Amino acid sequence: MKRVINYSAGPAGIPLEVLEQARDEMLDWNNTGCSVMEVSHRGKDYDALHMGTMDLFREVAGLPADYHVLFTTGGASMQFLMLPMNYLGEGKEADYILTGNWAQGAAKEAKRYGKISNPANMEVEAGSGKFVAIPKQGELKLNPNAEYVHYTSNNTVEGTQWHYIPDVKGKPLCCDMSSDIFSRPLDFTKFSLFYAGAQKNLGPSGVTVVAVKDEFLAKAHDGLPAMLGYKSYQDKFSMHNTPPCFSIYILNLVLNWIKKNGGLEAIGKMNDKKQKLLYGMVDNSKGYYKGLANTDSRSSMNIDFKLPTAELDDKFVKDAKAAGIVQTKGYRSMGGIRLSAYNAVTIKDVETTVQFMQDFMAKNPA
Amino acid sequence: MKRVINYSAGPAGIPLEVLEQARDEMLDWNNTGCSVMEVSHRGKDYDALHMGTMDLFREVAGLPADYHVLFTTGGASMQFLMLPMNYLGEGKEADYILTGNWAQGAAKEAKRYGKISNPANMEVEAGSGKFVAIPKQGELKLNPNAEYVHYTSNNTVEGTQWHYIPDVKGKPLCCDMSSDIFSRPLDFTKFSLFYAGAQKNLGPSGVTVVAVKDEFLAKAHDGLPAMLGYKSYQDKFSMHNTPPCFSIYILNLVLNWIKKNGGLEAIGKMNDKKQKLLYGMVDNSKGYYKGLANTDSRSSMNIDFKLPTAELDDKFVKDAKAAGIVQTKGYRSMGGIRLSAYNAVTIKDVETTVQFMQDFMAKNPA
Repeated sequence: MKRVINYSAGPAGIPLEVLEQARDEMLDWNNTGCSVMEVSHRGKDYDALHMGTMDLFREVAGLPADYHVLFTTGGASMQFLMLPMNYLGEGKEADYILTGNWAQGAAKEAKRYGKISNPANMEVEAGSGKFVAIPKQGELKLNPNAEYVHYTSNNTVEGTQWHYIPDVKGKPLCCDMSSDIFSRPLDFTKFSLFYAGAQKNLGPSGVTVVAVKDEFLAKAHDGLPAMLGYKSYQDKFSMHNTPPCFSIYILNLVLNWIKKNGGLEAIGKMNDKKQKLLYGMVDNSKGYYKGLANTDSRSSMNIDFKLPTAELDDKFVKDAKAAGIVQTKGYRSMGGIRLSAYNAVTIKDVETTVQFMQDFMAKNPA
Repeated sequence: MKRVINYSAGPAGIPLEVLEQARDEMLDWNNTGCSVMEVSHRGKDYDALHMGTMDLFREVAGLPADYHVLFTTGGASMQFLMLPMNYLGEGKEADYILTGNWAQGAAKEAKRYGKISNPANMEVEAGSGKFVAIPKQGELKLNPNAEYVHYTSNNTVEGTQWHYIPDVKGKPLCCDMSSDIFSRPLDFTKFSLFYAGAQKNLGPSGVTVVAVKDEFLAKAHDGLPAMLGYKSYQDKFSMHNTPPCFSIYILNLVLNWIKKNGGLEAIGKMNDKKQKLLYGMVDNSKGYYKGLANTDSRSSMNIDFKLPTAELDDKFVKDAKAAGIVQTKGYRSMGGIRLSAYNAVTIKDVETTVQFMQDFMAKNPA
């Protein structure tokens, strides 16, 4: 089968050149006569890759030297747990802004470790699980006693995205960037801590990157279990036990791909063009395609919309697949269509998709 | 460079056919037009792989239907934490048999959650970190109040291995099998829980397999954080968040490779032949090669020995590398040589190595 246009929400597409390099190096990586999966993490070859990937991440993000890059496992869900465990405890409080399903998930785990307040809760109706918008700066009611403020920069399920970095009045700002990290230029120095499961814009599942400013890292609790304390990851450069080496290797190749393609400035322009094409199609369809998120809160990564009927949604998914455009079905709680146009989706892929949407609409009137 | 003979202690060698298949499927797995890294873990293709790998693991182990197979992350180190967190607590006790560095590591984390007793502590001198033997059944002093008994079936650092399954008088038996799992036939039904980081005999780092008997799983604590409670892995078949898909894919290929090669019976015979060749060389070297573990406790997986001088140890590592035999250096606390002859090391590899050892000894007299 030939390669498809892949809108998976995650694990998601990986740039073709990255996969080709991984394929070509599978039996002999870095002239070792082994796969990268087969070398000791204590050896010089892997060590250079590992430390080099941390440096490359800092370079792509434009992070100064006072940030540590940590490689953890268990996805963003493990960070839902590690962040509060490392900073909260008896009598401590934290702010969690609720903008979607995963933001709620983060807040839920945090409640085990402290008192959680919500500067904004964007759930349309309590218990509905429905979210369509990002709060405005003026709507945020910050808790002066919070140890930190946490938010989710892009809501994968709901197709909404923050288009500004909230001003949290000097509190440490923490962010789950799993589904839009490195999709655009951003002043990453505004964050005390940010994290991302790799499986959307950074590579395969299996590794989660956590970037932490040293002054915030210094405040993390001591004496936590080695696998859960940020300080053990810092102390041993995330090598206190065997790291997920292959996922880190692909992360390295993806970071190099971003760099080679002009860095976040160029990537941001590409994604901007992609989202304009896709939302342009939705907005010019005279209501045939109906976007699910509020216009000003739309995500450039996850484009959620519905067709006139659920039957047409299903036919869209089926016909798209036949046309080589796959994984377009919306999240189970949302229905409709979700096009996750992460970094590896090209402008050409999007142009092909827009043409398909045009044709589908013509052939299948409401 | 051509493929080398790889004695890495972990991440370790992977069967060549497995790597070749992974290479060939890198751009198009299972006729999806995507890499296995690029498909949603909620889709039918990945789901079949994931569930099929659990079944295959049970089949290779000969486990009955009342065992669950869980896929976790964070290596065996995360299990050092999860096991006691799931079963201990205020006033609870557990037995940890100490036979090496990693057994100590497991016991150390367990102390956070309960009172830990040691049916045997094989450290040669307290605080020395030196271990050379496995205790005999009669030496085990079991704690009648223990919730479970934990041991480490193979000690990767020290080159020792249990050659029997201890009788723990009806207590749930738990075992870290990271470095000898599926190296030989074993009655896995004797265990209430066993686990292994994949990166020695099962595939790449990034996934840890935990097999648990249902009656023991039922006793795990409820209400733990989703990423740390065994029951959340059970409830969602280890899909409550994105699993480390690529590592599980390679695990699947390795399990199929074991099955195709005759299962554990045949693998055990191969490993037995390999260890006889290597220890035979050591024992017939008139003391030139000196084994580090007690003879009756020797590991078939990690063959540790020293040459007459530290200089000759270094020369051995260097000359072996030049001869295409790599990663032979001993663990940092042990010195000397460690040949980790896991499943992917072939009899032919070992024969080549024995010839090299013979030649080296002749050329470099003590």
